[in-house]
Amino acid sequence: MYDIIIIGGGPSGMSAALYALRFNKTVLILEKESFGGQIASSPRVENYPSHKSISGLELANSMFDQILDLGASFELEEVTGITKENDIFSVKTNYGVHQSKVVIIANGVKHRKLNIENEENLLGKGVYYCAVCDGPMFKGLEVNVLGDANSALQYALMLSNYCPKVNLLTLFDKLFAEPFLIDRVKNTNNIHITHNLNLKKFIGEDHLEALIFENTKTKTELKINTDNLFVAIGQIPDNEKFSNLLDLENGYIVTNDNMETKTPGLFAVGDTRKKEVRQVITATSDGAIAATKALYYLS
Amino acid sequence: MYDIIIIGGGPSGMSAALYALRFNKTVLILEKESFGGQIASSPRVENYPSHKSISGLELANSMFDQILDLGASFELEEVTGITKENDIFSVKTNYGVHQSKVVIIANGVKHRKLNIENEENLLGKGVYYCAVCDGPMFKGLEVNVLGDANSALQYALMLSNYCPKVNLLTLFDKLFAEPFLIDRVKNTNNIHITHNLNLKKFIGEDHLEALIFENTKTKTELKINTDNLFVAIGQIPDNEKFSNLLDLENGYIVTNDNMETKTPGLFAVGDTRKKEVRQVITATSDGAIAATKALYYLS
Repeated sequence: MYDIIIIGGGPSGMSAALYALRFNKTVLILEKESFGGQIASSPRVENYPSHKSISGLELANSMFDQILDLGASFELEEVTGITKENDIFSVKTNYGVHQSKVVIIANGVKHRKLNIENEENLLGKGVYYCAVCDGPMFKGLEVNVLGDANSALQYALMLSNYCPKVNLLTLFDKLFAEPFLIDRVKNTNNIHITHNLNLKKFIGEDHLEALIFENTKTKTELKINTDNLFVAIGQIPDNEKFSNLLDLENGYIVTNDNMETKTPGLFAVGDTRKKEVRQVITATSDGAIAATKALYYLS
Repeated sequence: MYDIIIIGGGPSGMSAALYALRFNKTVLILEKESFGGQIASSPRVENYPSHKSISGLELANSMFDQILDLGASFELEEVTGITKENDIFSVKTNYGVHQSKVVIIANGVKHRKLNIENEENLLGKGVYYCAVCDGPMFKGLEVNVLGDANSALQYALMLSNYCPKVNLLTLFDKLFAEPFLIDRVKNTNNIHITHNLNLKKFIGEDHLEALIFENTKTKTELKINTDNLFVAIGQIPDNEKFSNLLDLENGYIVTNDNMETKTPGLFAVGDTRKKEVRQVITATSDGAIAATKALYYLS
């Protein structure tokens, strides 16, 4: 039995753990894949106050070291659901059940997929969702990035460091990212932007061979022969499994300012909750608030 | 005319500036004393995710460097009031008037005083509110700290490094601080705690000579002959001058989740706004949210 179980080991979960451990509470963090969350795959973070420029992985590792030092317990398990009985939460995972008095959901969001035929087949075989993880194998080659917001631009910039040509392919006729990033992309000679492209089809069986787009303005078809596409079209939450205990809005968890859901003792923090600004710094703040309110709940 | 004027150069104001500057907005920061806010006088910060242990001054300086690099403008002026006409804010200071389309109030809180006779006279002459600033002159001597929460315990711990005896004097019969800090204080041999002391009087004319307490349990008087007292009994906001444009609750500025006050284009962030958890990490988050919402407001 733990005081607090935290579901998810990204910045919001690690910040909640930091605060909870400093409050002398016992903490178990359940993470299904790897610590750090989305930020770990960001090549460069320059908007986390106090770090002028740091890789996302380095930032995530510094948070992980900080909580390990304080005695955090963790398991690499995937949570499948939560129940509550007599003020005790049972958190079910693919390996078993853990119990606690408080649960903080910090499970973030996952990559949005295109839901186009053949996408799943070609995943990791030409179709990628993480440029940091999979980009380096295309060093010296021409690459393609699909998307028009911050993460797509960041992918393009990162790939432009070691790929001679980066094609940034967008659905609309402009970019929807921070002006700072847009400027940087426009000033990078080897990034080429093509707008108004709606991806219709992946060609290839064992590996991606070509992409078929429709130009949304001219309604003509465009075929690009390539063996790679980095998809960066946003994120979606994964909270249906918790809907017995909390309210969802467009899949995001509804909380109040104090990160409390409608079930006492159950909190949600970071990108997974309904809010307007999703940044590392807002995620870590959420974690600190939830742990502090959890302390009051426990006492 | 600036896009955004930020009132206050603590972590919340600097974080707002960081985000606003990355959005390519022109930013003026008005700070009345020195950059860094309260955190700059904290000897050790261990709960800002990603920094295992850092002095408050170092943390503040790292944030300041970050925004200087991005081209922040700032003035050392004290704001006396704000008016709004035709969507333009006029921010009055002790030196003149600055104008902008958006104002973000990040003026933090100030030290709460005891409001005991002779307190003002003896300020800086035996009565101190900042152990970081004034502690070092008592190196090798016995010192006294008044308070029972985090900042008092932090003062005591810091002073214990270079003072042979630190008396921690509290009003109630327990400490109201993080267990982590309480443990550390209790394990520090040269910190001596005395509970149930209500300070009634300062003795001394040119300099503090003695403190007169009432023991709240025994109702007896206790006189401590000493030339110093470090007061750490909390903070209060300073927002009356803005009450023409926003709502206050117990002196704190009322905002919504997006840091918006009731006046469009006027935001408040950090310790100065009504909220439950006041930490550096929550302050910096507030700043990021306000700047992001300000960007939408400006466009």
